[in-house]
Amino acid sequence: MIEILRTTEQFQIFRKHIKTDLSIGLVPTMGNLHKGHLSLAKESLRANDITVVSIFVNPMQFGPNEDFEKYPRTLGEDAQLLKELFRSEGFPKSGQKRLVIFAPESVEEVFPSGYQTKIEVGQLTDKLCGLNRPGHFEGVTTVVYQLFNIVKPTRAYFGQKDYQQYIVIKKMIHDLRLDVQIIPMPIKRDDNGLALSSRNQYLSENEMELALNLPVTLNALKQIIKSNPWPISYELCHAEIEKKIKSNTGWDYLELLDAKTLESPQNTTHTVIIAGALKVGTTRLIDNKLAEVVYA
Amino acid sequence: MIEILRTTEQFQIFRKHIKTDLSIGLVPTMGNLHKGHLSLAKESLRANDITVVSIFVNPMQFGPNEDFEKYPRTLGEDAQLLKELFRSEGFPKSGQKRLVIFAPESVEEVFPSGYQTKIEVGQLTDKLCGLNRPGHFEGVTTVVYQLFNIVKPTRAYFGQKDYQQYIVIKKMIHDLRLDVQIIPMPIKRDDNGLALSSRNQYLSENEMELALNLPVTLNALKQIIKSNPWPISYELCHAEIEKKIKSNTGWDYLELLDAKTLESPQNTTHTVIIAGALKVGTTRLIDNKLAEVVYA
Repeated sequence: MIEILRTTEQFQIFRKHIKTDLSIGLVPTMGNLHKGHLSLAKESLRANDITVVSIFVNPMQFGPNEDFEKYPRTLGEDAQLLKELFRSEGFPKSGQKRLVIFAPESVEEVFPSGYQTKIEVGQLTDKLCGLNRPGHFEGVTTVVYQLFNIVKPTRAYFGQKDYQQYIVIKKMIHDLRLDVQIIPMPIKRDDNGLALSSRNQYLSENEMELALNLPVTLNALKQIIKSNPWPISYELCHAEIEKKIKSNTGWDYLELLDAKTLESPQNTTHTVIIAGALKVGTTRLIDNKLAEVVYA
Repeated sequence: MIEILRTTEQFQIFRKHIKTDLSIGLVPTMGNLHKGHLSLAKESLRANDITVVSIFVNPMQFGPNEDFEKYPRTLGEDAQLLKELFRSEGFPKSGQKRLVIFAPESVEEVFPSGYQTKIEVGQLTDKLCGLNRPGHFEGVTTVVYQLFNIVKPTRAYFGQKDYQQYIVIKKMIHDLRLDVQIIPMPIKRDDNGLALSSRNQYLSENEMELALNLPVTLNALKQIIKSNPWPISYELCHAEIEKKIKSNTGWDYLELLDAKTLESPQNTTHTVIIAGALKVGTTRLIDNKLAEVVYA
């Protein structure tokens, strides 16, 4: 059974009738679903009685010069993809699992007129995507808080392409003692290595070539970490990063950080994240690789 | 029965054992209780099965040059005052009402090490006390959110001396769909008219005289509103305010606003707030009066 709810009130009525012993998985998306989103929905369907895929292009997380207006809105196709996933996973037969699409029909459904309360995670948002997208993470944490509030999920699924987003939301959940389990899911990639993103469709064929520089660079850096003892590997990576940034003005950032704290790695660091944001034409793409450091 | 809990864990254990059909009133304070606080506690005792008076001097709502260090901490006396209130209200007899003091023994009890998530209400905090105390309301809303989170009250009591605070918290509750009822309580005053405040004790005898300028001015402005038709009364008040501000450099602000929106009053305004903040020596005092406008 699959249904689409278009208002918060509708959703809240639906939510009220869910028995308290059933588990609910939330997959928050901005729609225009690709295999990355579907892998989250699939895992949520497996682990929960009810899966809610929210589809909401959240204006609060876009900057004034970003692509809010242009962001693809494809509810019909999204619903079709979810229906197919639901069917292919064999759930209609059992009759127990449910998939619900919560697609607020207007911004006011989530942020009613006069809304003015924001939730902001501090230090973790001062870097990487937070640097060149002021207010972005505040928009993300605020909308995720609202979605948690409306959906009241047992578990929430986030893709690791937006690794900083995952860490920031995890911190919000911890600090605000929210009663939800956050589940990070691995990045889905095209055959050519490019991380799946709704923004990939903005790329021309030529730009697609340039975009591959992003995963190729991250992979090369990951190889350095894997094949050298720590912290020599850090020095080597660091030098390589400086070279890359000098040779291409498209890098918004290219960094190696402790995966847990998003601070500079320490002698005691176990896992690093190699994260990059690359501008290709007018499109800004992000990607990252996690790597365990090697102690000699 | 009255008890003091000093850690969040202790409180949470206590909270878990409260039957779900009992009502809980929260009176958030920074301690150093006076009759204003006690009037809130009294009302909470009347209306709820369990009253929680929290005592926590919240560093997040103090500016770097404010009186956080110097703020009076008097837990022993506070507990004694609450015990006397409880006894004088005749509650020990009935055995049903309970009064609990939640007095976190350290800042980390409320904001554990590494805490970095803030809650910020927008436009309503851009004025009055928000102008000269950047970050103040963010600190207030964040700590109140945490106290709500720990205490999970049915009702929360706030004094109207901090009228802007009351309006801001009400907005946070609404925007974040928090399940708590906010109850504003009237300002308590000394016989001389000065609004009760823990900061009054900073005043020398001479400064006390100067401080009375605050309620006297607010009263005079309220009389103008009461005895003239709207919006003539607004023009008269406005002129009087300009005069007052020119004649005394101690005013942090002195303003007449719509009581509901904290915006400039409109032709349709029903109730105005006349709010002032006056610096007397190094002490900053605030006070306000509500007044209904008179339509001719």
